Amino acid sequence: MKVDGRSYRTIWLKPGHEHVVQVINQLKLPHSFEVTDLSSVHDVCAAIRGMLVRGAGLIGACAAYGMYLAALEAPDADFSTFLLQAGETLKATRPTASNLAWAVDRMLLEVTGAQSPTHARMLAKEAAMAIANEDVAHCERIGSHGLGLISQIAQRKPDQVVNILTHCNAGWLAFVDIGSATAPIYAAHAAGIPVHVWVDETRPRNQGAALTAWELGQQGIPHTLIADNAGGHLMQHGLVDMVLTGADRVSRNGDAANKIGTYLKALAAHDNHIPMVVALPSSTFDFALRNGVANTPIEERDADEVRFVTGQNAHGTLETVRICPPATTARNWGFDVTPARLITHLICERGICAASEAGILALFPEHAGNG
Amino acid sequence: MKVDGRSYRTIWLKPGHEHVVQVINQLKLPHSFEVTDLSSVHDVCAAIRGMLVRGAGLIGACAAYGMYLAALEAPDADFSTFLLQAGETLKATRPTASNLAWAVDRMLLEVTGAQSPTHARMLAKEAAMAIANEDVAHCERIGSHGLGLISQIAQRKPDQVVNILTHCNAGWLAFVDIGSATAPIYAAHAAGIPVHVWVDETRPRNQGAALTAWELGQQGIPHTLIADNAGGHLMQHGLVDMVLTGADRVSRNGDAANKIGTYLKALAAHDNHIPMVVALPSSTFDFALRNGVANTPIEERDADEVRFVTGQNAHGTLETVRICPPATTARNWGFDVTPARLITHLICERGICAASEAGILALFPEHAGNG
Repeated sequence: MKVDGRSYRTIWLKPGHEHVVQVINQLKLPHSFEVTDLSSVHDVCAAIRGMLVRGAGLIGACAAYGMYLAALEAPDADFSTFLLQAGETLKATRPTASNLAWAVDRMLLEVTGAQSPTHARMLAKEAAMAIANEDVAHCERIGSHGLGLISQIAQRKPDQVVNILTHCNAGWLAFVDIGSATAPIYAAHAAGIPVHVWVDETRPRNQGAALTAWELGQQGIPHTLIADNAGGHLMQHGLVDMVLTGADRVSRNGDAANKIGTYLKALAAHDNHIPMVVALPSSTFDFALRNGVANTPIEERDADEVRFVTGQNAHGTLETVRICPPATTARNWGFDVTPARLITHLICERGICAASEAGILALFPEHAGNG
Repeated sequence: MKVDGRSYRTIWLKPGHEHVVQVINQLKLPHSFEVTDLSSVHDVCAAIRGMLVRGAGLIGACAAYGMYLAALEAPDADFSTFLLQAGETLKATRPTASNLAWAVDRMLLEVTGAQSPTHARMLAKEAAMAIANEDVAHCERIGSHGLGLISQIAQRKPDQVVNILTHCNAGWLAFVDIGSATAPIYAAHAAGIPVHVWVDETRPRNQGAALTAWELGQQGIPHTLIADNAGGHLMQHGLVDMVLTGADRVSRNGDAANKIGTYLKALAAHDNHIPMVVALPSSTFDFALRNGVANTPIEERDADEVRFVTGQNAHGTLETVRICPPATTARNWGFDVTPARLITHLICERGICAASEAGILALFPEHAGNG
């Protein structure tokens, strides 16, 4: 997508220095646009853990590049052990994200046939690039499928804006390009359908205010920032035509783990007969997980993310302020799980399906046996 | 309630200077405790509009004292016109708050029988003090009634903590003393029932983080601050026994306007079979309003409340930071309306009732005729 008119992905190999991975530093957005070098699998782990990179698809792609860097670092004598260990360390950085384990396991599989460590390093590089390219292709297809849903709404209200509410950032910045939840929005905008996005602030880390608002602004998509609390009121009063979010892990039965607060929006969408749509590439499915609500591992993060807010002060400096008494304790779960019964559609690269085991397996018959 | 061990109400006449009203400056909490003088009805309007004072009961009491100050200011020759005009100005400061119009109208009624402006000024002073005292008495009775509900939960889970989730601040700071939603909590704590409060941050103005956390901390009530997004996850996992909020206007049919986001918590409570309880003094009922969801006037506030966050920086200074791109636009509705069907109980000073016209009128039969 565009940054000041120039095209970027969120992750790439540094031109001329292909043993270095470059990413957009998402901790600095929206206040400054900075590219950060990741030179080792240790750097990659720190970047994922510290949320310098975040988002379902990007975590996967970044982990894949991390495995490539691990392959470069691994001593020939101890190649496999080093790589397996690196994979475990990567998987532990963010417990809820399904794409992380998926990418690590796929990278390990891709190098198993290698004839030598050198060959494995070449295969790892190709595999990481392939994973990133697939992520983009999958998001493109999610956009095409989702465009159909937005078009249907647009046809029911000609000459009126289609209002879409989104939570967190499942945009370009959460993937390698285009995004999952944003893909249908970008496709609709490109097709001339007037769309407007309600952007949930997404406390405590404000990915909506900091990332989605910035990303949509850069692409010229009309949008309005709202507090996470506002969505129910908007839906009660006919101001939302569709809730469209991403996901971090979708279970075999269609329960969708996504940024904390998504479940509340799904409840409001259901109560107001508004479609609740979850967009995800197939790499986000956890086909082995049969009950997402009960059994998705939910990451608990530092309570200070709730107690403090970071932004730009009047002098243009990044500043962190405490919003509660000094002694107040807080808890900070990163995700919640929306039960399948509240989800109208899942959109993935293979098409649109019901949020149910039958719906999902109709698109992914190859997983029918291993449930 | 206590501040550093000393008892305070939120509003009182300045000792020795009873033409001045003193209030706790809620814009400075939790970072500093400051008392502000209000010397004119203009000061009172500015304090309510700017949320130096806020909360259903306190807005009512403050408006009553504002009418008293207006009576002091009103020229003898033009007394009634001045007072009526002051009442209209006060009513316009916050459109959703039911207590505001209730207090102004009651003050006008109390002075109608006056034999002279001087007599009216004396009556106005007595009436304002009576309204404040009644507010306290009503909150006390809400506490007694609500204690019964908490006791029932405590009996079902002996030796375990009762977890109550609240949104915004319907505490002592929102009333003259004790609070509405906090009253049963303070009563349960005093009765030796182990209670713990999940405090919703309550974006965009953070009344939960800034006021409720501070207030509960000062009274020694165990509590934990959470993002507004977290409540659904907590309820899915059995970590909430009751949702307990205040209200700013409750319609004849039991729909409850309260701080934006309350509706989302009510949906989650309903989805997880958790009681959703709304506590309010009778002054918050709008018996003339038959459909709260459709017809409650909802205040829209400055979008900068969403775009900026204020807190204390590392140097102990209050600082305001922008959390979104400079060009991002925002919208900021102050309240939403929870439909009566999602409310398990209303608690008011006369007792506990169903959130329905029949339930409410059983407690307030004197309003049966004027619907």
